Amino acid sequence: MERQDSLLVKYSQVRARSIELCAPLQVEDYVVQPTEDVSPPKWHLGHTTWFFESLILKPNIKKYQYYNEKYNYIFNSYYESLGERIMRVNRGNLSRPTVNEVLHYREVIDENVEIFLSNTVSDEILDLIETGLNHEQQHQELLITDIKYILGHNPLFPSYKLEYDKSLDRLAKIVEPHYLKVPAKNYQVGYNGDDFHFDNEESEHQVYLSEFRFSDMLVTNKEYVEFIADKAYKRFELWLSDGWDWVQKNNIKSPLYWHLIDKSFYEYTLTNGLQKINPDAPVTHISFYEADAFARWKKQRLLTEFEWEVAVKKYIMELDYNLSNFQDNNLFHPLARKESSYQLIGDVWEWTNSAYLPYPGYNQPQGALGEYNAKFMMNQMVLRGGSCATPIDHFRASYRNFFQPEKRWQFTGIRLAYDESN
Amino acid sequence: MERQDSLLVKYSQVRARSIELCAPLQVEDYVVQPTEDVSPPKWHLGHTTWFFESLILKPNIKKYQYYNEKYNYIFNSYYESLGERIMRVNRGNLSRPTVNEVLHYREVIDENVEIFLSNTVSDEILDLIETGLNHEQQHQELLITDIKYILGHNPLFPSYKLEYDKSLDRLAKIVEPHYLKVPAKNYQVGYNGDDFHFDNEESEHQVYLSEFRFSDMLVTNKEYVEFIADKAYKRFELWLSDGWDWVQKNNIKSPLYWHLIDKSFYEYTLTNGLQKINPDAPVTHISFYEADAFARWKKQRLLTEFEWEVAVKKYIMELDYNLSNFQDNNLFHPLARKESSYQLIGDVWEWTNSAYLPYPGYNQPQGALGEYNAKFMMNQMVLRGGSCATPIDHFRASYRNFFQPEKRWQFTGIRLAYDESN
Amino acid sequence: MERQDSLLVKYSQVRARSIELCAPLQVEDYVVQPTEDVSPPKWHLGHTTWFFESLILKPNIKKYQYYNEKYNYIFNSYYESLGERIMRVNRGNLSRPTVNEVLHYREVIDENVEIFLSNTVSDEILDLIETGLNHEQQHQELLITDIKYILGHNPLFPSYKLEYDKSLDRLAKIVEPHYLKVPAKNYQVGYNGDDFHFDNEESEHQVYLSEFRFSDMLVTNKEYVEFIADKAYKRFELWLSDGWDWVQKNNIKSPLYWHLIDKSFYEYTLTNGLQKINPDAPVTHISFYEADAFARWKKQRLLTEFEWEVAVKKYIMELDYNLSNFQDNNLFHPLARKESSYQLIGDVWEWTNSAYLPYPGYNQPQGALGEYNAKFMMNQMVLRGGSCATPIDHFRASYRNFFQPEKRWQFTGIRLAYDESN
Amino acid sequence: MERQDSLLVKYSQVRARSIELCAPLQVEDYVVQPTEDVSPPKWHLGHTTWFFESLILKPNIKKYQYYNEKYNYIFNSYYESLGERIMRVNRGNLSRPTVNEVLHYREVIDENVEIFLSNTVSDEILDLIETGLNHEQQHQELLITDIKYILGHNPLFPSYKLEYDKSLDRLAKIVEPHYLKVPAKNYQVGYNGDDFHFDNEESEHQVYLSEFRFSDMLVTNKEYVEFIADKAYKRFELWLSDGWDWVQKNNIKSPLYWHLIDKSFYEYTLTNGLQKINPDAPVTHISFYEADAFARWKKQRLLTEFEWEVAVKKYIMELDYNLSNFQDNNLFHPLARKESSYQLIGDVWEWTNSAYLPYPGYNQPQGALGEYNAKFMMNQMVLRGGSCATPIDHFRASYRNFFQPEKRWQFTGIRLAYDESN
Repeated sequence: MERQDSLLVKYSQVRARSIELCAPLQVEDYVVQPTEDVSPPKWHLGHTTWFFESLILKPNIKKYQYYNEKYNYIFNSYYESLGERIMRVNRGNLSRPTVNEVLHYREVIDENVEIFLSNTVSDEILDLIETGLNHEQQHQELLITDIKYILGHNPLFPSYKLEYDKSLDRLAKIVEPHYLKVPAKNYQVGYNGDDFHFDNEESEHQVYLSEFRFSDMLVTNKEYVEFIADKAYKRFELWLSDGWDWVQKNNIKSPLYWHLIDKSFYEYTLTNGLQKINPDAPVTHISFYEADAFARWKKQRLLTEFEWEVAVKKYIMELDYNLSNFQDNNLFHPLARKESSYQLIGDVWEWTNSAYLPYPGYNQPQGALGEYNAKFMMNQMVLRGGSCATPIDHFRASYRNFFQPEKRWQFTGIRLAYDESN
Repeated sequence: MERQDSLLVKYSQVRARSIELCAPLQVEDYVVQPTEDVSPPKWHLGHTTWFFESLILKPNIKKYQYYNEKYNYIFNSYYESLGERIMRVNRGNLSRPTVNEVLHYREVIDENVEIFLSNTVSDEILDLIETGLNHEQQHQELLITDIKYILGHNPLFPSYKLEYDKSLDRLAKIVEPHYLKVPAKNYQVGYNGDDFHFDNEESEHQVYLSEFRFSDMLVTNKEYVEFIADKAYKRFELWLSDGWDWVQKNNIKSPLYWHLIDKSFYEYTLTNGLQKINPDAPVTHISFYEADAFARWKKQRLLTEFEWEVAVKKYIMELDYNLSNFQDNNLFHPLARKESSYQLIGDVWEWTNSAYLPYPGYNQPQGALGEYNAKFMMNQMVLRGGSCATPIDHFRASYRNFFQPEKRWQFTGIRLAYDESN
Repeated sequence: MERQDSLLVKYSQVRARSIELCAPLQVEDYVVQPTEDVSPPKWHLGHTTWFFESLILKPNIKKYQYYNEKYNYIFNSYYESLGERIMRVNRGNLSRPTVNEVLHYREVIDENVEIFLSNTVSDEILDLIETGLNHEQQHQELLITDIKYILGHNPLFPSYKLEYDKSLDRLAKIVEPHYLKVPAKNYQVGYNGDDFHFDNEESEHQVYLSEFRFSDMLVTNKEYVEFIADKAYKRFELWLSDGWDWVQKNNIKSPLYWHLIDKSFYEYTLTNGLQKINPDAPVTHISFYEADAFARWKKQRLLTEFEWEVAVKKYIMELDYNLSNFQDNNLFHPLARKESSYQLIGDVWEWTNSAYLPYPGYNQPQGALGEYNAKFMMNQMVLRGGSCATPIDHFRASYRNFFQPEKRWQFTGIRLAYDESN
Repeated sequence: MERQDSLLVKYSQVRARSIELCAPLQVEDYVVQPTEDVSPPKWHLGHTTWFFESLILKPNIKKYQYYNEKYNYIFNSYYESLGERIMRVNRGNLSRPTVNEVLHYREVIDENVEIFLSNTVSDEILDLIETGLNHEQQHQELLITDIKYILGHNPLFPSYKLEYDKSLDRLAKIVEPHYLKVPAKNYQVGYNGDDFHFDNEESEHQVYLSEFRFSDMLVTNKEYVEFIADKAYKRFELWLSDGWDWVQKNNIKSPLYWHLIDKSFYEYTLTNGLQKINPDAPVTHISFYEADAFARWKKQRLLTEFEWEVAVKKYIMELDYNLSNFQDNNLFHPLARKESSYQLIGDVWEWTNSAYLPYPGYNQPQGALGEYNAKFMMNQMVLRGGSCATPIDHFRASYRNFFQPEKRWQFTGIRLAYDESN
């Protein structure tokens, strides 16, 4: 019963958080979808609610009547097993339901979930609720990155004034990087514990790693400007073939949100609108292709996802990071740092040179949850760590984020590594 | 001075009318652009205002400061001569300026226009203001058709509750059609008068017409259902080559807004949402290709734009239509009818089999106005008449509307004709 | 019987001519389709043969067995009524049947046609044969323009060495243009006679023309270079809206086949490969959009198709052109000129500012022939005259050629006109 | 000197082999490119020759004059460092150079290479020549698969009559599959030796593998027909998300080259044209998506590339395959089998569930060779083994083939595996 109680508390916290994140928006901001990847904020609010309605309420409450049958069609994201859905590209074409109607939908579903949880339910249902909350937290990160895209691609460059416990600006780097060594041997990777985690982190298994060194700092804007100044976007030899095509076809010349104005680079920031770039901040909003080209330009490379995980699990911890709960549940605190001398992990998601593929012995869940992670294991690259937009309890050493290599609207960045023998 | 006074009155009426038409909307409805042709209502409100700001205020008031320089970029539609503009397809990606900000922009510009007109201005400026008002009225028709598209393509099928002086439902046909004869000879066509008209109606000129007969009724939904039932959408021989490609590629099976539900056709109507089709109402929301295929199926044809103009000018008038001001300024009243026995002109725009091309001796205006009509004289077909969404003082016998042959979101319909000799 | 005999003679002449035109080709040249509009020469040879097989032999010979059933699929161009066909874009993907197999197909069908014609056949069949021969002659023109495209878009720029009775180079202009006047009145246009003509030329009818003047010279390369030098391709105000989009999207900077090498323009010519442009030759391989923009730049305009027909019928003839058979069958001789002082008609097809639409009282033929011209009456512009690639007996004052306004691979050019009153 | 001599022998053998493979073709077959992936055979012949000219002759012979400067443009495939090149999609648009001209180009370059090799050259140059020969052998495999595509997509289904030492038909399976066990532990993978290999196989390194079992047989046509009959192409739950999109968008219903005729499946075969499928032959011409879906349908999975390599290196060898030279240079003989009781390795390339990524410590070569493999390490999946079209000395246990997951025109197939613990 203890778990159910604490989940109920978490339920209301998480659900309230989504609303809180939208507080600075105008009604109009909730509606638009300026590119296919970016969903309208009201769609996020509806979709996360529909997840609870269709996966918790509908299957577990007798004669449950949907709030509105058509919301199944409107708010389903990609679950083929849960019926037809509006094409993703059309989410921004729907003015109805209005924001107020979506908020009312949230209230009604929240009430129903709370009533449903006033009686003891099975562990399986609690698992599903926990998944639903983690799902909503993932959408909270998307809410922030999608709002940034919506406002940052508006010619008026409005800013987003959030009374917020944590800065949405990345912190600045303050010292020279050190390259820390990881010796060659077999390591354990993947999730090992009893707390919440996604199926794609399962299960703990061995990998052999060759010796390598990795930087304890992220690549900064200043370094990235040097890369641009060295005509890197014009030099095919720095790019993967698909990356070079992407650069040419989209006429890419700098990170997303950067603007060259009178020979200086500005970037759109959520909290302050258009600003001169901060040279010491980690570069962000870059594609895998750009991360990879930057590393090649530096004659170094990106880490694999397992190198990253071993590095963060073992080394960062040993360096006396303030990671009290790290060993228990794989979580770490993204704001921890040792005497201010190391770059934060958690400012930006770090592209790895690992394709998103199943772990040995991976068991795809049945039903709708089987569509959550498994069906995307193709043509995507793994990102590790977390960003300034990631909910605080999602920083898990085994967490696997994944996106297509050309995506840039998440807070993505670069950590360098090299092989000791080179 | 009389003209300036009456224009000032018209100015406030027309400007108020645009706001009135949006009254039934939710804020969210103002924002979306579900297809490239359909602009967000707030864009229409901003664009029509920008037209006055950039063509009247800016060139004629010394040191005039734009309300917001970026509005030039946001609210320019297609005027290359007036600078850069947001790509049409991105109008629905802009959440800002908000609806309230656009309404404030309207108020400020209206005040400035009224102050500007408190002193006597030249005839050229009055001409431009008159053009601006006719332009806004054209956008009022687009507002209605765009709102219909926005609401009619939402899975919730909301209706539009306008306290309105004129039904947005087409009227029903009540008698059998008569085919009226027009004898072969030279006729005058094109605008001849001193009142407002567009440059593309100039100037009056002769055309020789062969003898033909035209229907005094529009094609009805009932007749169109017969066309569908006769498998017309599957029979290539009824279609122009480009039309057949369009049918195949878009899997067209019925007019826009029609839904086949349990073997009956329903159509989305603005004022009543989804309704069974009224068999006696004129069919509407069909492409030129469909109009042309229907005529071929009937072994008849569409009228040319000149046949249409001669027919409406001469015959409808002679049939004692209540068209008191017809001879003076080429206007006719779309609701006029003789003893309820003839089909209305003005329920739907009538596709003609004439390409939109310049008249003999056409003089393209200089500057931005030269872009108003002239540059579109290619790949479009002429429509004549007007529709239930057309402002009441835009029914002009010489008025030339034009759209690409595949467009369907305007209220478009079919009138049949045949050659006497056949 | 006289007609049947002379048709038989013409049959073998026309059929032989197609082979003759291909004589300079390598086997490889017969196969490729470098753009959708351009068909492989072996496809032309097969298609024109299939026309006789499917429209003459199959319907009129009992138990006729197709040479190869699959050739129906391979060699049908666009006749929906004659069954399925390979997609146009795939014509160049077929290495088989080989050139030799296609030549054998031609021989067998020719034998069968000649046997079939050894007995008297009906006038309807003779009409069809005449159509088939005119069809093949149209494809002879396409053969030349398609071969030019195939060779002219090869980086090796091979030339085409034809022992040929008529130059495929346009002739050079030698005097200043005169603008000849046509008075306002009703004129007869359209075909009136008993000889071969296409259904789209029917039937003779009246049109009223306002007074205008037209140039007796075609626009030259030299004038077109001035147009380019005046930055015309960068000036939106000279272009139709669709034309401006076409220029931007395709980065158009000069006519097709032109190359700017060391600041001089060269053009690929069929008989001599890459050559410096001849300043006095008529400009060719330009789109309607370019013709229209050029005219606007000159503050003149293109002729309508009826103005062109009246001009050629009446004025050119009066100027004592050597047009002996002109009055009888609407034909004129393209090489005729008066004391070398007038520009040839017939060097290039002349874009008119008329959309390709049916004439008053047009009757679409039944069956496959109804698809020959009628279904293309949309989104195309009329060209009049003929070109250096046109068979000598296809120069008919009433002949209506038609292409989409962006097409450039035919020999197309510009004749200017203006309104007398301007 | 011994190596140089033997390379010269190999040079003339390999070069002759390419010509031999084209012997059954008609001239027309050399020219076409029916889809972007498939190059015209004459392009392969020219490109492999250009490789020797531009990488051996030009850099190593003083004042070397290119055979034809434009061939650099025409026959460069994807080497940015070697200058501009014709767009891949346009290879089939070039009728020139003709086949005879390409053959002449080969002869001249071959003479020059032989003269060049008549003097002793450095090991680096010999390495490059060896690479050029392996490159040409890779194109020999492409020649076969591209010829199959060209002939197999022609409606006449011509067959390819090669006097050939090895069947291009896959062999049939004759026994039930056994699932062989591989125990969990660290293994060595990657190339370790002194013979020719590609940079992407370097270098030998450890991997830890969990215990698994793999089938000693490939999936057969019969099994694949059962998969189809179980409506697998309609069941989203069997597919990766990108795979499901690919199936829907391309309306995929069976392997490439399969035709459903009167309820039986036929496949186009190179040597015999259209044939009823052989139920016992390994299924081929399937995408990674299909391989993956098939495995999921069987509740099994594909091997990773390292599992595959360990399996072939260790188990197949132990089963007393006739692999005499296996330990020396990683090669195995694809036709070897033990008493006819095991499925061949080498009938079809086997899709693995490994993305194509660099090995630990990978060093990208400098210059043009750095573009050979390295720049393609994104969005491709690894295939292992070899096929009936692979040159006999290319069967190397460490060989890494790679293609995008939707590609099907290579001879690709399926081997199943499962985790012991499941």
